[in-house]
Amino acid sequence: MPDLRRDPIVGRWVIISTERGARPHDFVPVQTARPVTATLCPFCPGQERLTPKEIMAYRPQPLQPNSPNWTVRVVPNKFPALQVEGTLDRQGIGLYDRMNGIGAHEVIIETPNHTDSLADMPTKRIEDVLWAYRDRMIDLKKDVRFRYILIFKNHGAVAGATLEHSHSQLIALPIIPTSVFEELEGCRAHYEQKERCIYCDILRQDLADGDRIVAENHEFLCVAPYAPRFPFEMWILPKRHAGYFEESQKVQFESLAPILSEALQRMDKVLAKPAYNFILHSSPLHEKTGDFYHWHIEIIPKLTHVAGFEWGTGFYINPVAPEESAKFLREAVL
Amino acid sequence: MPDLRRDPIVGRWVIISTERGARPHDFVPVQTARPVTATLCPFCPGQERLTPKEIMAYRPQPLQPNSPNWTVRVVPNKFPALQVEGTLDRQGIGLYDRMNGIGAHEVIIETPNHTDSLADMPTKRIEDVLWAYRDRMIDLKKDVRFRYILIFKNHGAVAGATLEHSHSQLIALPIIPTSVFEELEGCRAHYEQKERCIYCDILRQDLADGDRIVAENHEFLCVAPYAPRFPFEMWILPKRHAGYFEESQKVQFESLAPILSEALQRMDKVLAKPAYNFILHSSPLHEKTGDFYHWHIEIIPKLTHVAGFEWGTGFYINPVAPEESAKFLREAVL
Repeated sequence: MPDLRRDPIVGRWVIISTERGARPHDFVPVQTARPVTATLCPFCPGQERLTPKEIMAYRPQPLQPNSPNWTVRVVPNKFPALQVEGTLDRQGIGLYDRMNGIGAHEVIIETPNHTDSLADMPTKRIEDVLWAYRDRMIDLKKDVRFRYILIFKNHGAVAGATLEHSHSQLIALPIIPTSVFEELEGCRAHYEQKERCIYCDILRQDLADGDRIVAENHEFLCVAPYAPRFPFEMWILPKRHAGYFEESQKVQFESLAPILSEALQRMDKVLAKPAYNFILHSSPLHEKTGDFYHWHIEIIPKLTHVAGFEWGTGFYINPVAPEESAKFLREAVL
Repeated sequence: MPDLRRDPIVGRWVIISTERGARPHDFVPVQTARPVTATLCPFCPGQERLTPKEIMAYRPQPLQPNSPNWTVRVVPNKFPALQVEGTLDRQGIGLYDRMNGIGAHEVIIETPNHTDSLADMPTKRIEDVLWAYRDRMIDLKKDVRFRYILIFKNHGAVAGATLEHSHSQLIALPIIPTSVFEELEGCRAHYEQKERCIYCDILRQDLADGDRIVAENHEFLCVAPYAPRFPFEMWILPKRHAGYFEESQKVQFESLAPILSEALQRMDKVLAKPAYNFILHSSPLHEKTGDFYHWHIEIIPKLTHVAGFEWGTGFYINPVAPEESAKFLREAVL
């Protein structure tokens, strides 16, 4: 019997359709490896002139900007979805509303090495990437036009990556996006009713249930969520309640880097290095969400096609129960 | 300057990012043609035993069920996402909610000819497909457990089709899905404020503006919507206000078939036969939505990857303005 499960935060129903009995090997990995074209790669050291001028970079010694010998480098997106200069100019056109596409669109180049993937990097270097996320958030927070910053990663062509050199992206938006708003409202409603953070409740129940746990350390839990939209979806949650990623303590980044690395390695092992997206969910910049919102990371391997049913309903059909996917991921030998 | 546009019904913002200057030929068609494997196709005439027993079929003469010589045939999905037998058994598991996956999942085989695509079929035969949709909706409406029926089509592997023989799907659900609910609420809010249907307002403005029109006949308008999530997205709207697809008049199906055919042909011409989804948006079965809801069809060519940004925000980045895509589609020589 298929199972209809409800996400406790946003109320989205998911059909766990295990009748099809999908196993990891059913998700034939879409080929993400492409020819190594490092000579033309604008993200490789020595090619710094091919990107717009860098916003920041970590270098062992303080050197000139846009020189090689960096470990993490942040540059504006060459084809930005949004533009930094200008004003919003909100406008009605008859029935319709529009405004100028104001925002920041940056690229975080995670490594100088063209063939590295985030999963294989030493945890100290993953930590640096997390610090770069934080530093950019702190800086952009000063611009009062921005209300939300999204940090995300598209890995592999079918997950939307247009360059293979490992990188993440940051988009700062002048509005709080729909799906962030819905998540916040779900958290707020739970808090108003129970005076508890819903993600803290999820942590408590998932730790007790045990069968959706993928990995765990002192500061973080990695689980397959109860009502996952996608097969092998994972969430990484800080065990201590915290609304703002950018306010994390040093000790937390030191724990986040290894669990993120472990989650990606387990996924690579079980699903043969799939394309994936990861998305950092953190509080809007200027809202007081400290009591009811809890930042976290979502990891979505790109294994299935979103099709007519999903577009028509907002429901998702997932052929793998999270208890199944967590078991495969947890038991993978690294 | 990128344009931020708001969908007037659900309030979803879309970034029209025309800076990248995408043109139809930039959307390299993902190969949808696959080897013709008609001998093993369960949807071909003569192979009726390979599907579950038929629910209905149109045959020139009344013949035995599950025999060949049909023009349209409806069968249960062999791997249903939901199951018809049983009760919902709503349950709480700690924090989480679940119920049994009760529902109907049917396949509408649109043609006996394995190589036909809906776009190329004579309009009289497309009309038959529309009648089959209607007949199944009328029949399933009698089952009081169902609150919503979604009819959709996945064409091509990357759009989620698992069989190439042209078919649509029907899913009857025990709940009104999230995104249908949001659309209804948007329509209801507009009606409460203005005492007008928002889709009727859209029809009026798009007819006056003219630059988003793709095709038109006496009963229907095909437009590129003002805030499309996807490049070359199209909506087909009945010009006369109507909430329920299944209550359409015969004359309307006679007009819908040719405009649906024309929209698909224009899309095939401009985008070199892309994979696509189409989705019928009609009223929930037992709600009185007659005054404020307006049924319509959405057509989404599968040209881009939904990636981290979309999953994290519910916003969409669309590289083609609808005025541009409508011009390409409208001016294509068929």
